[in-house]
Amino acid sequence: MNPYKTKSSRIVWSCPWYSVRQDEIITPDGRPGIYNTVETTDAVWIVPVTPEGQIVMIYNYRYTVDDWCWEVPAGSVKPGQTVEEAAREELLEEVGGTAVSLQKIGQFYTANGFCNEVGHYFLATGVTLGATNHESTEVMDIRPLPIDEALRMARAGEISDGTAVLALLLSESTLRDISVSFASP
Amino acid sequence: MNPYKTKSSRIVWSCPWYSVRQDEIITPDGRPGIYNTVETTDAVWIVPVTPEGQIVMIYNYRYTVDDWCWEVPAGSVKPGQTVEEAAREELLEEVGGTAVSLQKIGQFYTANGFCNEVGHYFLATGVTLGATNHESTEVMDIRPLPIDEALRMARAGEISDGTAVLALLLSESTLRDISVSFASP
Repeated sequence: MNPYKTKSSRIVWSCPWYSVRQDEIITPDGRPGIYNTVETTDAVWIVPVTPEGQIVMIYNYRYTVDDWCWEVPAGSVKPGQTVEEAAREELLEEVGGTAVSLQKIGQFYTANGFCNEVGHYFLATGVTLGATNHESTEVMDIRPLPIDEALRMARAGEISDGTAVLALLLSESTLRDISVSFASP
Repeated sequence: MNPYKTKSSRIVWSCPWYSVRQDEIITPDGRPGIYNTVETTDAVWIVPVTPEGQIVMIYNYRYTVDDWCWEVPAGSVKPGQTVEEAAREELLEEVGGTAVSLQKIGQFYTANGFCNEVGHYFLATGVTLGATNHESTEVMDIRPLPIDEALRMARAGEISDGTAVLALLLSESTLRDISVSFASP
């Protein structure tokens, strides 16, 4: 049940990637107010694991924070796509990856304090790499890392993108099982 | 090194909580473009653990997503505050909590694809509860949960707020150690 009353709703700013919706509301304690929501489409994050037991990480410049960030492949769900189709498309575009298996590992609001984005998280296994198809606003290196090293970095604070750390920690136990299968006897 | 060139920068929309900065840029491959960034202050998330071995969770209505969400206490860093001061203030305001110990467990960009928010994550132990001081736009129940139950919910997909799940998984091993100390002999 929504404890707020919405009196009006309008888009006050927009760009091709997101918009700001401004609602006149009555708060649960009866006072008039304004609530602004950044509206955007759903998004996908993918932890890609190769048959050799490596996680295909990305080292990515993010203009928003003026910083280089370790990340996993991610992107928006386009109109008409299922989240699985979007995950496979981003995997292909960003790292040239094709997965044998795609397993959903979670679904979360990215930043529910101000934004309506829903993130769908996947573990992709049997990932083989080919050519990429980056957008001109994407500046990234593809950097496969051993599973244990990626998990160490996630735990050690060496990965600054919270969504990438969430993706890695969600798949941690499955990843450790895969990693063990590559350990020397 | 920033591989983009910024030609101009202006605020195109703002509210008291965040604003949108629009930059005219030259992309790394030499093309003119526009980059929009949602600018906001740093934020804090706190995993509060009581001396009885419970995590003080919040069950919170989020207008942005029209949904009730399990969360941990969180909020913005105010001007002049250290992140530790902000964490102690949010803990007090949202759940009436006072912590014996506050340990930083991580620092992450919340949504670096479109926003510059930096989240500072803390584990608060020895937390005792008193009166709260909620803002009128906050609709929340305080719901302490046993550590193992909160971690189970985080792993099972029963917590929809990605930042809360990130906070819980980051502190997982410390939390399990605390939980074990409460197990029957």
